[in-house]
Amino acid sequence: MLKKPLHLAIVGATGAVGQEILNVLERRAFPLASLRCFASERSKGQTIQFREETIPTEVLAPGCFSGVDIALFSAGKTVSLKYAPEAVREGALVVDNSSAFRKDPSVPLVIPEINPHALKQHNGIVSCPNCSTIIMLMALGPLHRAFKIQRVVAATYQAASGAGAVAMRELEMETRAVLEGKTFERTVIPHPYAFNLFPHNSPMTDNGYVEEELKMLDETRKILEDPSIWVNATCVRVPVLRAHAEALNVTFCNPVTVSQAYEVLSQVPGLTILENWKENRFAMPVDASGQDTVFCGRIREDLSFPQTLDLWVVGDQLLKGAALNAVQIAELLGTNTGI
Amino acid sequence: MLKKPLHLAIVGATGAVGQEILNVLERRAFPLASLRCFASERSKGQTIQFREETIPTEVLAPGCFSGVDIALFSAGKTVSLKYAPEAVREGALVVDNSSAFRKDPSVPLVIPEINPHALKQHNGIVSCPNCSTIIMLMALGPLHRAFKIQRVVAATYQAASGAGAVAMRELEMETRAVLEGKTFERTVIPHPYAFNLFPHNSPMTDNGYVEEELKMLDETRKILEDPSIWVNATCVRVPVLRAHAEALNVTFCNPVTVSQAYEVLSQVPGLTILENWKENRFAMPVDASGQDTVFCGRIREDLSFPQTLDLWVVGDQLLKGAALNAVQIAELLGTNTGI
Repeated sequence: MLKKPLHLAIVGATGAVGQEILNVLERRAFPLASLRCFASERSKGQTIQFREETIPTEVLAPGCFSGVDIALFSAGKTVSLKYAPEAVREGALVVDNSSAFRKDPSVPLVIPEINPHALKQHNGIVSCPNCSTIIMLMALGPLHRAFKIQRVVAATYQAASGAGAVAMRELEMETRAVLEGKTFERTVIPHPYAFNLFPHNSPMTDNGYVEEELKMLDETRKILEDPSIWVNATCVRVPVLRAHAEALNVTFCNPVTVSQAYEVLSQVPGLTILENWKENRFAMPVDASGQDTVFCGRIREDLSFPQTLDLWVVGDQLLKGAALNAVQIAELLGTNTGI
Repeated sequence: MLKKPLHLAIVGATGAVGQEILNVLERRAFPLASLRCFASERSKGQTIQFREETIPTEVLAPGCFSGVDIALFSAGKTVSLKYAPEAVREGALVVDNSSAFRKDPSVPLVIPEINPHALKQHNGIVSCPNCSTIIMLMALGPLHRAFKIQRVVAATYQAASGAGAVAMRELEMETRAVLEGKTFERTVIPHPYAFNLFPHNSPMTDNGYVEEELKMLDETRKILEDPSIWVNATCVRVPVLRAHAEALNVTFCNPVTVSQAYEVLSQVPGLTILENWKENRFAMPVDASGQDTVFCGRIREDLSFPQTLDLWVVGDQLLKGAALNAVQIAELLGTNTGI
């Protein structure tokens, strides 16, 4: 529970994640002393409806974080790099949804259900992990504590929302155009997206992994505090709107049975086992969309390798993958520090 | 080259694969003495347009294969089980696209580019492998010959076409309904499919693998004639119309470098390396749709395990995954046996 209402700021309030942060604050009855909404020049003049109030959007400027307790940043890496340190100087705590500070050893990288203790030490900035990492670790974090993970081979099925609200609209518009036999001019998604898919469009790195794939490796090691874990990911963008799915093949250091894994995962807050084996019915993006909980299931013994299980996870990219996780961190910060 | 024009029959001529078989025969100028088109009672009265001829569809009946050299079956397992042996008794060779005889040791399971020699011994029936297996082995077959594969962890991104022409139409219709905010009554696909995905809807087996996943294991072993190979697959149906994609993580018995793998794969007939690393551009379902060749690329060293590579393959499910492969087998049968 928060000790007292907070002065909160949202940076990127008109974006896909920003909008979900507002929804989450409302749903969780987050105690607010004040709420300020920052957006880019592009959104100038736009207002935000929140709890029957109309909040004007503001543009970031020196001094704008004065009086703010916690600022939730979801406006991309460039904005975070420039303004998050400024916010800290002006006295705010920053919860950052971008990749700007995730690798910084002085910045905790936190999934509240998995490593809340990491919040004890910070210099004013706390990072939210990458969405694919959060959704994966909601299941793998507890399994690692129980059976120690050696290696993960992950294949992702990632939604449009990870590329922002514009990408979600573009997927819908392009799909409509394809169905009507019309041409469509893409602006954010680099490839045909209607009834199509493609390896994840984050920047390619020297070793052949895209940045999204390396995030799943580096962030897992940091969050689980174990540099020996390997994650080999193939990230793929599929024509789904807002929930990521992941096929995970996990090799453990210690023996583990399917039923032991279920036992561990059935007790994880924020994680729901959704499955009906008889009807071959497992979690799907439509199940997870708009849900706070991450779904998992379809745990099988990998017949091809010792101490290895397959599992299936699905989570809302905008909620637990971003907005919800950030608000949960803000709640913990408010509780721990007694702002 | 075929020795002389063949008397050909297509069973399931009005289905998604049957229609593609007709297209493939036309494109390849397959020498035909006659063509008979069989379809279910449902299609009674339908005719088939082929090379400026109008061919009536016929219903299967005793004696109907008399005078037929080769019958291409694409009407599902039940029809194949009942009528393929009858066709053989009546003097035809059968190329079967269903799963009915794939596991039968006396039935060759053939991908013409990979194991044409298997055609030498047969009892009248030759099976086409499962589409996901064919697309995977177009790349893994040659790599196995060169470096011996120990284990594959595969995640598939499978199109609607694998569930038939009705499923393709249903995906389009449901997507249109969702975009228009209307309700939609599904008839073949068991789950919401528009902007959604789900673990593959083939029957669940006792060990937690669905049949589609076990096909990728069993058929790989049979085709590559190596029962020591392991394939651990997770098969997923994605909202794509007619091309399957697969993320393959392959551990080899022998040392192999990325460039050695490219060297082998650059020389495989029917396989095309499609990639532009600088622009993070790899094969997509829209590239493969309507194409005979299977695309591969994005070969990376798996940093997490020795002698292991990641690769990405995409192929048209209806063409190389079914119709083209069947016609290629018919061409070989015509050549080998000198019908």
